[in-house]
Amino acid sequence: MKKYLAEFIGTLVLVLFACGVAGQICATGVSGLIGTALAFGLVIVAMAYSIGNISGCHINPAVSIAMLISKKISVKDFCGYIVAQFLGAIAGAAILNAIVQDPGKLGCNALYNGNAWLSFLIEVILTFVFVIAILGVTSKESNGNIAGLVIGGALVLVHLLGISFTGTSVNPARTFGPALIAGNLGGIWVFLLAPLVGGALAAICYRFLSSDK
Amino acid sequence: MKKYLAEFIGTLVLVLFACGVAGQICATGVSGLIGTALAFGLVIVAMAYSIGNISGCHINPAVSIAMLISKKISVKDFCGYIVAQFLGAIAGAAILNAIVQDPGKLGCNALYNGNAWLSFLIEVILTFVFVIAILGVTSKESNGNIAGLVIGGALVLVHLLGISFTGTSVNPARTFGPALIAGNLGGIWVFLLAPLVGGALAAICYRFLSSDK
Amino acid sequence: MKKYLAEFIGTLVLVLFACGVAGQICATGVSGLIGTALAFGLVIVAMAYSIGNISGCHINPAVSIAMLISKKISVKDFCGYIVAQFLGAIAGAAILNAIVQDPGKLGCNALYNGNAWLSFLIEVILTFVFVIAILGVTSKESNGNIAGLVIGGALVLVHLLGISFTGTSVNPARTFGPALIAGNLGGIWVFLLAPLVGGALAAICYRFLSSDK
Amino acid sequence: MKKYLAEFIGTLVLVLFACGVAGQICATGVSGLIGTALAFGLVIVAMAYSIGNISGCHINPAVSIAMLISKKISVKDFCGYIVAQFLGAIAGAAILNAIVQDPGKLGCNALYNGNAWLSFLIEVILTFVFVIAILGVTSKESNGNIAGLVIGGALVLVHLLGISFTGTSVNPARTFGPALIAGNLGGIWVFLLAPLVGGALAAICYRFLSSDK
Repeated sequence: MKKYLAEFIGTLVLVLFACGVAGQICATGVSGLIGTALAFGLVIVAMAYSIGNISGCHINPAVSIAMLISKKISVKDFCGYIVAQFLGAIAGAAILNAIVQDPGKLGCNALYNGNAWLSFLIEVILTFVFVIAILGVTSKESNGNIAGLVIGGALVLVHLLGISFTGTSVNPARTFGPALIAGNLGGIWVFLLAPLVGGALAAICYRFLSSDK
Repeated sequence: MKKYLAEFIGTLVLVLFACGVAGQICATGVSGLIGTALAFGLVIVAMAYSIGNISGCHINPAVSIAMLISKKISVKDFCGYIVAQFLGAIAGAAILNAIVQDPGKLGCNALYNGNAWLSFLIEVILTFVFVIAILGVTSKESNGNIAGLVIGGALVLVHLLGISFTGTSVNPARTFGPALIAGNLGGIWVFLLAPLVGGALAAICYRFLSSDK
Repeated sequence: MKKYLAEFIGTLVLVLFACGVAGQICATGVSGLIGTALAFGLVIVAMAYSIGNISGCHINPAVSIAMLISKKISVKDFCGYIVAQFLGAIAGAAILNAIVQDPGKLGCNALYNGNAWLSFLIEVILTFVFVIAILGVTSKESNGNIAGLVIGGALVLVHLLGISFTGTSVNPARTFGPALIAGNLGGIWVFLLAPLVGGALAAICYRFLSSDK
Repeated sequence: MKKYLAEFIGTLVLVLFACGVAGQICATGVSGLIGTALAFGLVIVAMAYSIGNISGCHINPAVSIAMLISKKISVKDFCGYIVAQFLGAIAGAAILNAIVQDPGKLGCNALYNGNAWLSFLIEVILTFVFVIAILGVTSKESNGNIAGLVIGGALVLVHLLGISFTGTSVNPARTFGPALIAGNLGGIWVFLLAPLVGGALAAICYRFLSSDK
């Protein structure tokens, strides 16, 4: 059970800190965009090295689905992780809202130009790149100690690009928590499904690329 | 005694450099906020790899209390470290004030909306995340050479979020030094106590999470 | 063939993400310049650790020519890599244009003050420094796990300087893809040739410097 | 002789790139300050991993004097390094001036409020922290592969603080090159001497701290 608790805490911290930074500074312009991207990456770094030993620090259903397809976790753990991640994200958003008392500062995602399918495509691409970096860096034993830094860097990257479009989800739990607390679930299906598709595609693509040539 | 001297120097450098950057640029807007957060993280990096071998580079009573609870330092060393850290912070703030000659540029912390208990809660959360990252990354021998980078990244993170609220203390000595030199000790109890509570909670939580499942 | 596919994907991601960030934020000022530089570096980090095991992650003809001169790849692979890189860059620019629907937001390079030969010189220098860092960091086995981070940092550096001049190419494929899609191939020869010259000079210089003293 | 050539190239690149970035963006405000600080750090990273194997990548007389005091280089090499560093810095500034054709964009240092002795003190402190981080991180074999990243981070730090005061020298060669090309050598003695004093103090202090307790 401790690994589920670790996923709960990790996702809570992800939403509280990174969506918290987004809510405080992201709307202020390009500096705020960069700072928000850094915050998402640094939460992954901080959590990877604290709860990574315990649960692997997925804190993202799109990562868990890729690990399931890659046969690194069981179906049972996959389900437990997903539940813990969603509960953690909701708790993180609730604590954040208690502090800032403004549903507009919870770092919610939004459709790009109101276009659901274009947003879907963007989220698939963003998640694909994020997850393929995770699969690559964790596939080599010798990368063990720096994997968290690389994964954090990859998350900064997908935010640098995606914030201008959808705000960057790449994580259904991260989007659902703030959306629920803000009471704005319109278009949520895009952010629930697209990252899972992107993560699954990354797992399939990486398996093909890394198989014997 | 050399380890106490190392803690004195490290905390002096922390306050002189990071609070110095805060005083110069933090009030200028979001870029200043990001630059200040980077400075706090980079001081930890620089000090971790220079005095880390000597004292462990706590330079923060909240870290020392977590190490005491985790039984990594003795009560005697805990007391010596705390004294060295406070003296170092005061010296750093005094040197900084001699250079900038402006008590408004010492990087002082302040209560969020004047609300002591909300600030207390925020500081507990910020310190909890910072210290749990420290405990996690230092628990694996193989992380030895990158621990300083990860801990620096975690300190950047808690500043990216917390500067908008309390300015981010997570370190009683870091707050006390500038407050004393600026002659403004109002609300100081929040910043003296909350980081210790957050650090202690992190140590207890991490021990539970990392115990056999 | 999988390594060519890896180069195709890597260069596609490089152009889609880094030129995409350039198109969204680079024109906004210095923060945008820094964010763009970070994006180029982080794409290299993300790709180095995902396709690095497969193809070595050149995703840049200037890197491939240096590796050819350094006898680390065959002539056949060199040709295959170059083709894959150019096709990947074109595909990345096409996808980016489909998303933003604005040829002005594809991160195109441009001559510095309209001066082709000065731009040529600048690109040679920028590429020389980028490629010599790659050759240096990959020459030591013990740097294996952090090489991607260092190479990413070097690419951030050449962008921090070069964006003010030519926008920084240092990569013929990265320039050609967006230029082709934007329908603006004026001065393209500078960005096709200069990085190759810079990369070749770096390989020759590094071989000399690192030979027995 | 190759190690002297390496120091020449390294210092040339340091001045051309980092002072080049300073000249383009540092005057634009806080974002420019941060970008300039990053550029100095990233030049060290890029050079540390390319010429580090050859010369140790001092590219700074203040580092060389600390290595001399720490008995890591001979007096003969110390002299050769210093000459190579100054020549490299002058060459770097000359190339930079040929590109930008503006002596105001060479990243020159300047006295803080015109106060030579306060500037001297600041430069001693900045260099002390930079050099003690170098000595610390290079003292442990196991830090070998990440030392360049840590040293780069330390240089970012001293620039984040010092740019607001003196522009940050911490390197006599880096200051002399641009000053000579710009034809403005007023107050140069501060930047020639203070970093040497800071570097020497760091070497002495580090030897004391790291000796047996």
